[in-house]
Amino acid sequence: MILRPYALAPNIERTPSINQRRLMRDLNAIGRIGIGDRGSVTRLVFSIKELRSRQVLIHLMRQAGLKIHIDGIGNIFGRFDGSDPKAPAVLAGSHLDTVIHGGKYDGPVGVIGALEAIRTISENRIPIRSSLEVVCFVGEESSRFGFSTLGSSLVAGEVHPKDLANAVDANGTKLADVLTSLGIAPKNLRSLTRDPKTLKAYLELHIEQGPILEAIGKRIGLVTSIAAPSRFKVVFIGQADHSGTTPMEMRKDALVASAQFIEYVEKVCRRFSAMAKGRVVGTVGAMKIEPGVINAVPGRAELAVDIRSTSAKSKNLVTRLVQRKAQAIARKRGLKVEVLTIREENPVPLDKHLLRVTQSICDRKQIVYEIMPSGAGHDAMQMAKITRAGMIFIPSQRGISHNPLEWSDPDDIGLGTQLLMETMITVANEKL
Amino acid sequence: MILRPYALAPNIERTPSINQRRLMRDLNAIGRIGIGDRGSVTRLVFSIKELRSRQVLIHLMRQAGLKIHIDGIGNIFGRFDGSDPKAPAVLAGSHLDTVIHGGKYDGPVGVIGALEAIRTISENRIPIRSSLEVVCFVGEESSRFGFSTLGSSLVAGEVHPKDLANAVDANGTKLADVLTSLGIAPKNLRSLTRDPKTLKAYLELHIEQGPILEAIGKRIGLVTSIAAPSRFKVVFIGQADHSGTTPMEMRKDALVASAQFIEYVEKVCRRFSAMAKGRVVGTVGAMKIEPGVINAVPGRAELAVDIRSTSAKSKNLVTRLVQRKAQAIARKRGLKVEVLTIREENPVPLDKHLLRVTQSICDRKQIVYEIMPSGAGHDAMQMAKITRAGMIFIPSQRGISHNPLEWSDPDDIGLGTQLLMETMITVANEKL
Repeated sequence: MILRPYALAPNIERTPSINQRRLMRDLNAIGRIGIGDRGSVTRLVFSIKELRSRQVLIHLMRQAGLKIHIDGIGNIFGRFDGSDPKAPAVLAGSHLDTVIHGGKYDGPVGVIGALEAIRTISENRIPIRSSLEVVCFVGEESSRFGFSTLGSSLVAGEVHPKDLANAVDANGTKLADVLTSLGIAPKNLRSLTRDPKTLKAYLELHIEQGPILEAIGKRIGLVTSIAAPSRFKVVFIGQADHSGTTPMEMRKDALVASAQFIEYVEKVCRRFSAMAKGRVVGTVGAMKIEPGVINAVPGRAELAVDIRSTSAKSKNLVTRLVQRKAQAIARKRGLKVEVLTIREENPVPLDKHLLRVTQSICDRKQIVYEIMPSGAGHDAMQMAKITRAGMIFIPSQRGISHNPLEWSDPDDIGLGTQLLMETMITVANEKL
Repeated sequence: MILRPYALAPNIERTPSINQRRLMRDLNAIGRIGIGDRGSVTRLVFSIKELRSRQVLIHLMRQAGLKIHIDGIGNIFGRFDGSDPKAPAVLAGSHLDTVIHGGKYDGPVGVIGALEAIRTISENRIPIRSSLEVVCFVGEESSRFGFSTLGSSLVAGEVHPKDLANAVDANGTKLADVLTSLGIAPKNLRSLTRDPKTLKAYLELHIEQGPILEAIGKRIGLVTSIAAPSRFKVVFIGQADHSGTTPMEMRKDALVASAQFIEYVEKVCRRFSAMAKGRVVGTVGAMKIEPGVINAVPGRAELAVDIRSTSAKSKNLVTRLVQRKAQAIARKRGLKVEVLTIREENPVPLDKHLLRVTQSICDRKQIVYEIMPSGAGHDAMQMAKITRAGMIFIPSQRGISHNPLEWSDPDDIGLGTQLLMETMITVANEKL
């Protein structure tokens, strides 16, 4: 399979090419599990569909001759031994679970890409010193239980099993009960932490899930850091009134207050949209109003706000500004307001050395890349706590993700996988 | 029972007083049917609770010696013959059905009030020329099937049975099936129209459902006209994107567009809030956003808008202005917008002569009243199409209605009922 454009470039590499046809075949096999309307894919963590996708992965790992290890929560590690099996391993992977009505590439590209990289290395008997491991983390998406990066957090020693006990999905099913039914004892989750001494690096290939690479016409993004969200709820409490009988000047309309707040979130984030200011993005993504009928003035509005940046300082400043604005709007309109923190996280810088390794491979192969932050969270964010972590992005068509229209060009998936493989080879053979 | 303040006034009336204790006892008996959390009352049309409230009314009418007639849809008429039983009748009433989690006075005050008026007239053998009828209309609230003033519309010859065939409630139950199960054949609904020649007037006592009377400290409102709503949906269609990866300047956020629209609705209605401008009120009461999750830019927002005024001209102007603004916001932000009409109604003027009759009774009894429009719709709006219609309002505490906190002072309910009775007596004895 010929990959453009570097395959046509003069100083062609002697490193073998990954098998793009096989890569896409396996990706599409995973993509058919949980497929629904308009090509949407739904594989919520621990659902029958998600478990089936893991079985397919185990099958593919077996076919590739990897040694399989499944840990207590269900993270799958497929190991290819290097010439020095005692040396710390180079891990590469991502996740197979999806959001509700998501796409087929968010996650699987990194898992199947890593598998394809190791298959190519194995078939071509490329000498490797450190062992390589494909990893599939459980529950990266927060869609079912509200926890994101569940599996990788446990590997990084970040989750307290107590928090897990309280998680419930939209059907009222407790995460604790799901774990029990799968034979997972919460007390065993404490022991999932991976010893950092066994790790040399973690690499993750992922779709960008944003519009930047497509907009600037580049096929590869090298990730410097992962933005962290501040997430909080803003609840405006006014007075529900009859929409026909309540004069405008006697209303305490929680929706109009919310409208002013929503506009302000956009306004202040636009002011901080330059990269130099940490490129803050802010979104009101969910909203609930009560009573929520055409003939009543809304008396209560609950907004879910997400502020992100790779700069903790900018994120915290914007968060403070918008929360203060919520108070000011409420005061002016005679409403009450409550601000409830959902999550407060710090941006995660990725490893500079790994970035330079991938960068120099790109330079050598004349691949045009963009050095950029990641707006979305990823398993790499957790793995960075226990090892050096790096990420490679490929473009998302129209920037769409978490949507059935999510799509990436197979040639870009191939190129990303090739770059992942060459980075894995270089890192595995580096001296520590 | 002593009523304030006119009971203490010097030129006390010789007309007998209604029995406020009995009135409140019967009102509270009705109010206990369908009672739920925090004193909320739910009697959706054709529900078992609503049917039970009708049975109680029939029982009370029988006790009062009225002749009962129930028409094809279930409207109940309780007749007290006058000295000239062939003369057109004076009707007075309202409805017993409620919204979901409503209060106990919206509707019943007008029905039980009219019953109490006739009971007082009967007991005191007050001479009456025209017959009097208490009427309880079916389904004034739109909460179950989206139809408001169902029963009175049929009496006024306004509903096409075909429209009824398509109505469905939130549980997916068809109105047509409900009617069939109650033994009501849709074809019989055509014959419910009441011959205007049999009607002299329709009078309705109702709680204000708004804050005006309380705010100005008056106990009686005399209604000039009923505001009509223009109701429409505005749908902004942008692009759902990842909230972390999509830069502010590349978004097509349907919620921010909605926010600007919501603010404008308030702004323009405030400009038209003076009575001279027809006192327009505008509300965005319901809203649905998609995907509606904290980590996605909203790609679609659907807003339900309600614009009301007693001036058709002002209402139509404001409706045009806000719809034009929706287009302008969408154009500027590169979104699509759709405006879908739900209902377009004309304001209904009430009868000037009836208002003068009630007004002169108030003057004589030194009752301080406010001449005002009704922002909410009522059965009187339909009855005005086939006879002279008048309405009397009493204050709603804090203007709250359609809410368990809905409350009116028993003394005000008594005063309103007294005024209703005296108006009925005057009108029944007037020459046509």
